[in-house]
Amino acid sequence: MVNQVQRVDGSWQSCKSDSSGASNNNSGGESSKESSRCSTPVLDVDRSDRLRDKMRRRMESGDRWFSLEFFPPRTASGAVNLISRFDRMGTGGPLFIDITWHPAGDPGSDKETSSLMIASTAVNYCGLESILHLTCCNQTKEKISGHLAKAKHLGLKNIMALRGDPVGADWEEEEGGFNYATDLVKHIRSEFDDYFDICVAGYPTGHPEAESYEEDLRHLKEKVDAGADFIITQLFFRADTFLKFLDDCRAIGITCPILPGIFPIQGYQSLRQLVKLSKLEVPEEITRVIEPIKDNDAAIRNYGIKQAVEMCRVLLDSGKVPGLHFYTLNREVATMEVLRQLGLWIEDPRRPLPWAVSAHPKRKVEDVRPIFWASRPKSYIYRTQDWDEFPNGRWGNSSSPAFGELNDYYLFYLKSKSSKDALLKMWGDELMSEESVYEVFTCYITAQPNRSGHKVMCLPWNDEPLAPETNLLKDELEKVNRRGVLTINSQPNINGKPSTDPIAGWGPAGGYVFQKAYLEFFTSSENVNALLKVLKKYEPRVNYHIVNVHGRNLTNAPDMQPNAVTWGIFPGREIVQPTVVDPDSFMYWKDEAFALWIEQWAKLYEDESPSRMIIKYIHDNYFLVNLVDNDFPLESCLWQVIDDMFELLDAAPETLHDAPETLHAAPETLDAAPETLDAAPETLHAAPETLHDAPETLHAAPETLHDAPETLHAAPETLHDAPETLHDAPETLHAAAAPEPVKDGAASK
Amino acid sequence: MVNQVQRVDGSWQSCKSDSSGASNNNSGGESSKESSRCSTPVLDVDRSDRLRDKMRRRMESGDRWFSLEFFPPRTASGAVNLISRFDRMGTGGPLFIDITWHPAGDPGSDKETSSLMIASTAVNYCGLESILHLTCCNQTKEKISGHLAKAKHLGLKNIMALRGDPVGADWEEEEGGFNYATDLVKHIRSEFDDYFDICVAGYPTGHPEAESYEEDLRHLKEKVDAGADFIITQLFFRADTFLKFLDDCRAIGITCPILPGIFPIQGYQSLRQLVKLSKLEVPEEITRVIEPIKDNDAAIRNYGIKQAVEMCRVLLDSGKVPGLHFYTLNREVATMEVLRQLGLWIEDPRRPLPWAVSAHPKRKVEDVRPIFWASRPKSYIYRTQDWDEFPNGRWGNSSSPAFGELNDYYLFYLKSKSSKDALLKMWGDELMSEESVYEVFTCYITAQPNRSGHKVMCLPWNDEPLAPETNLLKDELEKVNRRGVLTINSQPNINGKPSTDPIAGWGPAGGYVFQKAYLEFFTSSENVNALLKVLKKYEPRVNYHIVNVHGRNLTNAPDMQPNAVTWGIFPGREIVQPTVVDPDSFMYWKDEAFALWIEQWAKLYEDESPSRMIIKYIHDNYFLVNLVDNDFPLESCLWQVIDDMFELLDAAPETLHDAPETLHAAPETLDAAPETLDAAPETLHAAPETLHDAPETLHAAPETLHDAPETLHAAPETLHDAPETLHDAPETLHAAAAPEPVKDGAASK
Repeated sequence: MVNQVQRVDGSWQSCKSDSSGASNNNSGGESSKESSRCSTPVLDVDRSDRLRDKMRRRMESGDRWFSLEFFPPRTASGAVNLISRFDRMGTGGPLFIDITWHPAGDPGSDKETSSLMIASTAVNYCGLESILHLTCCNQTKEKISGHLAKAKHLGLKNIMALRGDPVGADWEEEEGGFNYATDLVKHIRSEFDDYFDICVAGYPTGHPEAESYEEDLRHLKEKVDAGADFIITQLFFRADTFLKFLDDCRAIGITCPILPGIFPIQGYQSLRQLVKLSKLEVPEEITRVIEPIKDNDAAIRNYGIKQAVEMCRVLLDSGKVPGLHFYTLNREVATMEVLRQLGLWIEDPRRPLPWAVSAHPKRKVEDVRPIFWASRPKSYIYRTQDWDEFPNGRWGNSSSPAFGELNDYYLFYLKSKSSKDALLKMWGDELMSEESVYEVFTCYITAQPNRSGHKVMCLPWNDEPLAPETNLLKDELEKVNRRGVLTINSQPNINGKPSTDPIAGWGPAGGYVFQKAYLEFFTSSENVNALLKVLKKYEPRVNYHIVNVHGRNLTNAPDMQPNAVTWGIFPGREIVQPTVVDPDSFMYWKDEAFALWIEQWAKLYEDESPSRMIIKYIHDNYFLVNLVDNDFPLESCLWQVIDDMFELLDAAPETLHDAPETLHAAPETLDAAPETLDAAPETLHAAPETLHDAPETLHAAPETLHDAPETLHAAPETLHDAPETLHDAPETLHAAAAPEPVKDGAASK
Repeated sequence: MVNQVQRVDGSWQSCKSDSSGASNNNSGGESSKESSRCSTPVLDVDRSDRLRDKMRRRMESGDRWFSLEFFPPRTASGAVNLISRFDRMGTGGPLFIDITWHPAGDPGSDKETSSLMIASTAVNYCGLESILHLTCCNQTKEKISGHLAKAKHLGLKNIMALRGDPVGADWEEEEGGFNYATDLVKHIRSEFDDYFDICVAGYPTGHPEAESYEEDLRHLKEKVDAGADFIITQLFFRADTFLKFLDDCRAIGITCPILPGIFPIQGYQSLRQLVKLSKLEVPEEITRVIEPIKDNDAAIRNYGIKQAVEMCRVLLDSGKVPGLHFYTLNREVATMEVLRQLGLWIEDPRRPLPWAVSAHPKRKVEDVRPIFWASRPKSYIYRTQDWDEFPNGRWGNSSSPAFGELNDYYLFYLKSKSSKDALLKMWGDELMSEESVYEVFTCYITAQPNRSGHKVMCLPWNDEPLAPETNLLKDELEKVNRRGVLTINSQPNINGKPSTDPIAGWGPAGGYVFQKAYLEFFTSSENVNALLKVLKKYEPRVNYHIVNVHGRNLTNAPDMQPNAVTWGIFPGREIVQPTVVDPDSFMYWKDEAFALWIEQWAKLYEDESPSRMIIKYIHDNYFLVNLVDNDFPLESCLWQVIDDMFELLDAAPETLHDAPETLHAAPETLDAAPETLDAAPETLHAAPETLHDAPETLHAAPETLHDAPETLHAAPETLHDAPETLHDAPETLHAAAAPEPVKDGAASK
């Protein structure tokens, strides 16, 4: 996918382990034990493994990993930022991330900032394997079990079991209560059997409250014996500290993976604070360097990076450390730089599927999605979160699950990352006409600043700037957007590129990927009339779905079946077809796509304001169109289709604009194809009337409607000068969609 | 598919109606009413329609059809012949065939010659829409209902409801019994509702027993009013007779389709007999021509063809006749010639799927099959006849149904069409060695006569001669078969040919079809050892399954998943992947493929005869191998794989034949890949021992075994001269597979 599709979304699912897995694949081996008829092609072995198995396979193949620790944000906008940080840091290929638990911060609540919700978002929406911290100190069993049950329900599979800090000094051991992390580990295993992978904390210099280093080691052994799967250590400043600890652990029989906790020093204050909390001592060789530069943040960070890299190198070179765990403090730069220098940050462009997979266990078989949500994968995941079963293999095998309601545009992970002010700067403080909207789209495509000098970095349907490869299509996209073909999604045709292709590739090596060219856009009913005429010439090469906000669906899709538009052929597998143009789900997408006009754009402006009315007019009157060129081995004809449409419009401007009988002819095109209508009878009943009447009305009431669109299209400066005129015009235009009010409109004028 | 695959099998599913259907496909139309999420791509609309709907669509599109009437055969070999006639006459595209009902011949029994079984075979195994005749005269309701229930169970959907001839002159109307066809029509509708399409007979000159022509017309109207869907008429000799009858039917309100019964005169005697039975008069203009040439069969047949063509032209030109029904008398030539001259015989090479679809209603969603049965589709249908659900879309979605037992090789539709004598002539009265077998395969491939001058027209795995397009691969196939790579199935790679391609195409127009190259053969364990070494170089490009009769399965199939080897991309559809290499079903096919050595070949020879022992040796010791080249855009590497194997064998003949340590090395290849073994532990346990020991034994006892294979391979003339030696040798060879008896064999020698 190219235009307005964030390809990069799915790329953090590193295929490293897949390729190492593939080399073991000489076998029916592991999976054949379960069933040789699995219900999904399982392109990515990692996807179905639990964390401890992933670790085991990485260790077997000598493939080192890293992981990242974050704490929950304080505010909703902090949450939005953290989630986009997850997306960015996910691209480097962490084996997992973990989210800390702060009892004072209501960590198990449904608030968008809670530990539980942040971890759930990381798993479900960012596709990241995640560990949720959980502390047990001063908690009832019921409360702990409640948190765990909720975590399981949300798709979390890993728990970091901690005691937590007692509140106040008067803490005492509670009979039968949770006094130590061991109690929590036992509780998890007793209540949830083997469901969760459990991590526990190790203290390379001993827990500050432990009687002795040896005593603390014995506690650690107890935690592991109680059922922990692996250990992450507290931070330390010398590689030797960890390596000695590791040897001591092995000596008393702790055999599970032990991951060193790495803390790249990022600033003087944060170091002091952390050291105070953790009761650690900063070695003299570090303080000696840091103290003199304590006011120079950049210098300290550079030193921190250098120090962390050196220490990590020693750890890795020891051959005893399979992976490194980073205390990120929710920052990106230092950790990413350390990882880059270590060669562990690998932005592997290969993806298991063309879209961002979710890490929720019940979605592990998901291998097909409608193309419509390509730019809004989080919205698709949200709207399908209640599905019990995901379409896999053939879309049609799904038991027709319903899409979730589109009832909350303010879900934090669907929120725009830009503020209202920033959006107004990009999309216009004041819209003059429909053409102002065309200009916003055009600026987004061309990445050129708009009239007020601001770059348009996003659109309601596209949260990210255009992908670089879209430059290939930029000229065509610019041309059509300028003329009101408002593109929101597209992909070029691909005729068998290697699955390892850095741009188009996905899935295991040795395969070939294919695409049918796809184009999706909003455009006026006038354009649609011309388009429908043009499309007759492209039967059956081009499939189309054309729908307005009222749900009228004009299509030539055979039997309303899904059309596979992205598929891959891989060695020894069935065909995988992860992206389809599905007629059913298009009707759900249509609701979302039209609603975004209002919710994300129109509502930036005051009620009844001309700007809002212009967006509302588009919402009420434009059609959402998708086109598929089925002839994928040939150069896409979709641009030619649009060119032909413009040519038809240009060739007969007087016909289409002035001569009422021609305009009558145009709706006949729509009426002539009643068999192409979606079956819903009420829609059929309502919609043709609307369409049929609308152009008539436009011309029956020339004093209002005929003039108004001309004005809107041709003379923005006029409108700019006469806002009160504009104020009337869109209202009237809006009314034109419904037959009745039109005469009133004309009369009131 | 090319080699040994009867492409033509599926081709009678004419796409004519599909193309006309496609032109209506501008719509969500018909099928969207049911469900927009159908469980199968429904490539062929015809396939899911009932006969009366097919007729309606043909009439709407002005697309004329023909149909063919057959009577059940008297003998089992007659049944085999009739079924291959169905296959041949099916290629011309009849809309349906019908099978007559003769109460005296036990027509409802399970005998292979019964009307019911013949009709069921036509539907299930030949994919032909079929009508079963049923007469009711002198039958109890219970018996009639029993026949109908059985017909429904067997997948029959259409009944020709007839009174039948009363037995003897003392027939009387029975109170409440079946006295007229009308009673039968009513009974069918009352007991089976709308399940069956019902046809009734019309008599253009009136039924011989009717009081009058008008009285008979009224009876016909009653039959239609009782629920008949269409009418087929008795034969007649003048077009006018039918056209008048048609007008008279319409005049009294009969509106259903009325199909003229055409009887091409094929001989003097058959004409006389038919005229006597039907109490018709032959018009004077015909007798005048025929009488003088009554002893000249060819002349009469030529006249019959000419007369029928002329009459049919008049009927078709009237515009009142949508289709012609032919009384074939179970013969091909005359009817096919009439149809060819009329332009109605259309061997449309297009097929809805690459294999022959079955017309059983429960198989209408079937759209994937394992490639293994490509040459034995009737066997596949037989072995899966009890499945409740057919794999559609993804093979893996099927609930793992079991294959039927391979318990009856003498099922009449699986029987060889050749006699034992003919088979012995093709495959050899007496086999000298394994190389004699190689020669049979080679002669089959090259279509050259064998040593005794007979062409090898079939093999146990291939009932038909090689398809003409196999000539492209002939040189390679000859080369490898000559050296003991005994090919039984193959297809070339195809990288996106149009779906309308006359050789490779299938499915609706406007699509593209693809194939991965496939090769399946039997070969010796010696060859397999070399092959396994060679295949390491082709990872992961080539997937293989290698299995011996004991079920040991060496494979590199990832996760034992099916590999799609034939697929198609069509406008507006999901991907269709009708042919897969499925690891599970390969184990069922293996049983069948190995058993055919014994059942169809070894058993031609006397028990204990050298010839039988040679085949048994191959059966016991050879491996069945399949190879898939996953890199379908490149030229197939499978021939190179085989060449490499030969090269390895040739390069080190002394290594492989003489040096025991090397031979020990070879089995290690097998032992080194335990993870590639199918999981069944008992197989694992038994098979490697056998393999590991076998070569050792071969060389530990050089005085017997080492000599024996050499003799078998190199010196057939020696063996020919010394049959008593040969008699011992294969026995010993056979024993070599099991470690214990070998020493006995050596001792006894």
